[in-house]
Amino acid sequence: MLIPVDLGSRSYTIAVECGALAMVGDHLRPLGLGGKAVLVSDAAIRRLYGTRVAESLTTAGFSVTELDVPEGEPAKSLAVAERCWDALLSAGIDRTSTVLALGGGAVGDLAGFVAATYMRGVNFVQLPTTVLAQVDASIGGKTAIDHPRAKNLIGSFHQPRLVVVDPATIGSLPEREYRSGLAEMVKHGCVLDAGYFDDMERSAAALLGRDLGHVERLIAGSCRLKARVVEQDERDAELRNVLNYGHTIGHALEAASEYQRWTHGEAVALGIVAEARLAHRLGEATADTVARQRALLEALGLPTRIEGVDPAVVLAAIKRDKKARDGRIPFVLAPEIGRFRLVTDVKDDDVLAALGA
Amino acid sequence: MLIPVDLGSRSYTIAVECGALAMVGDHLRPLGLGGKAVLVSDAAIRRLYGTRVAESLTTAGFSVTELDVPEGEPAKSLAVAERCWDALLSAGIDRTSTVLALGGGAVGDLAGFVAATYMRGVNFVQLPTTVLAQVDASIGGKTAIDHPRAKNLIGSFHQPRLVVVDPATIGSLPEREYRSGLAEMVKHGCVLDAGYFDDMERSAAALLGRDLGHVERLIAGSCRLKARVVEQDERDAELRNVLNYGHTIGHALEAASEYQRWTHGEAVALGIVAEARLAHRLGEATADTVARQRALLEALGLPTRIEGVDPAVVLAAIKRDKKARDGRIPFVLAPEIGRFRLVTDVKDDDVLAALGA
Repeated sequence: MLIPVDLGSRSYTIAVECGALAMVGDHLRPLGLGGKAVLVSDAAIRRLYGTRVAESLTTAGFSVTELDVPEGEPAKSLAVAERCWDALLSAGIDRTSTVLALGGGAVGDLAGFVAATYMRGVNFVQLPTTVLAQVDASIGGKTAIDHPRAKNLIGSFHQPRLVVVDPATIGSLPEREYRSGLAEMVKHGCVLDAGYFDDMERSAAALLGRDLGHVERLIAGSCRLKARVVEQDERDAELRNVLNYGHTIGHALEAASEYQRWTHGEAVALGIVAEARLAHRLGEATADTVARQRALLEALGLPTRIEGVDPAVVLAAIKRDKKARDGRIPFVLAPEIGRFRLVTDVKDDDVLAALGA
Repeated sequence: MLIPVDLGSRSYTIAVECGALAMVGDHLRPLGLGGKAVLVSDAAIRRLYGTRVAESLTTAGFSVTELDVPEGEPAKSLAVAERCWDALLSAGIDRTSTVLALGGGAVGDLAGFVAATYMRGVNFVQLPTTVLAQVDASIGGKTAIDHPRAKNLIGSFHQPRLVVVDPATIGSLPEREYRSGLAEMVKHGCVLDAGYFDDMERSAAALLGRDLGHVERLIAGSCRLKARVVEQDERDAELRNVLNYGHTIGHALEAASEYQRWTHGEAVALGIVAEARLAHRLGEATADTVARQRALLEALGLPTRIEGVDPAVVLAAIKRDKKARDGRIPFVLAPEIGRFRLVTDVKDDDVLAALGA
């Protein structure tokens, strides 16, 4: 399935199909780019998928340089970015060349930042291999590395030229990582599309069982929802805040627990529950709307009870959020399934209550 | 004089006026930005102009953090960028805040890169205090830091929200630096506007004498010419290459002499002469067109004879140029004063002859 992302001169396609990683070269060739490609990945992902991607690129006429980065979040450091810039320069990469990120969200964020800043921007392609990266991180052009004191602090917007999503890669995901990705799909349903949320409810067992037919349909649906939002607000000015549903509190939970206790998706699941509760407390949503969100997350094996963190510490982390604008934190609320409302005047007490209830 | 730069949602104004540095706050206030501002400069420039800019911002209601960076090219290092990101985080800068660069092209490039990448982009204002930065570097959104092996290798496009040009700052420029800036103005005339080139010829003595009336008119004219090019090709895809006139060879001369022998403007003057000669050699321009360019550069006290460098070393540097696309180097030629043509099939022998003649 081909999903267009319409951003004028920066438009691109998301190709979603089981087996698509063997077709990357075919998707890339028609774009008329230069002949050099750099495939950025970590050693574990490269062992699983590197050969088929590299062969597909070579067959399509590209010369391929492979570049290894650390696994997971440690890839997103300035030192790793610096090593990548060096490697690109040594490989003779120029503005017509293409950097491809093969892996999870961290590899995509790092490689995207390197591609965005090398020679003021070279072509970039996302080949996400986790659910989280497939339905969220790979779409929309957000790139970043971490600052020692703040995650994703250094980055830029740099749209990919192409995103290739191969849902078959979920076969290699550990259970916890797989389920974490589902939290972002739930998020899309909660605030953007009641029909999609219904489909997830009906398909919860099939999703947990990794039924590839259901997985492919729902991943593609999620990509389409995200693409529509990005099209309307490429630079995160207003509407795109909707994608932050569950993340204002979710990010703060991750920060307050030093990114050790929950995966990103688990923290988002907890954030969705807390922000649903906040909407109810503010008279914006019914108890049933809260209950449906919690029930779906539970059905997908995600945590829904915030325990063992000090609400005051979480509140302090919320106030350091990058989304803060002159001191005010925007919250996204779901007044009913599939709809959203931005609010910026939430009182601390209400946040604390939503965290502690 | 207010010169609009029309780039859709990224449009901005260039304000050119003697004394404008005392009015920065008045120009900035109507843009509706957040209350925090960071003024990036080097110690020498801060002593000259820092107080008047900071006071103007404070009077307009901004809270100002001042941030010192090294003078000149050493500011454009990853280590300095890292220090700036730290300082912005410590100062509580968020996405509504504004980073202002007060100084020459290096401060603008560095501060622009920091503003482009902090939280994926915050507001940025250019307050250029050298002719070079006023007529060229501050307009168009190019930001960069240097790689140990390649100048400007790491950077991004990030348009300023405002450019304030105070031509009175030329009073503090050393003679060599002042003249170097004039080379970029000559460049604009050579390939973009015969009338402007004529005006520079007529005003050469007044320019050399730093007559502020003439300087302000011609700086504003140059800003307007550059703005028109940027409007038509924001991301340096094609037309903007025209601004590279004199730079393909100029950059290579700088690199081949390890940035020690000539200022950027001097290298551009030499590059203009060599590329004019190249156009003549290729049958694109008359000898008179070459002679007028050389004569104007000489009248402005700029060097026009390439001596003491090995043409083969310069040619090798050209081939490493960031503008290279899949191995081909685009040259901008001036078939007559005020017009240009892009060519990509220049033979090495012709380049060597233009360098050695």
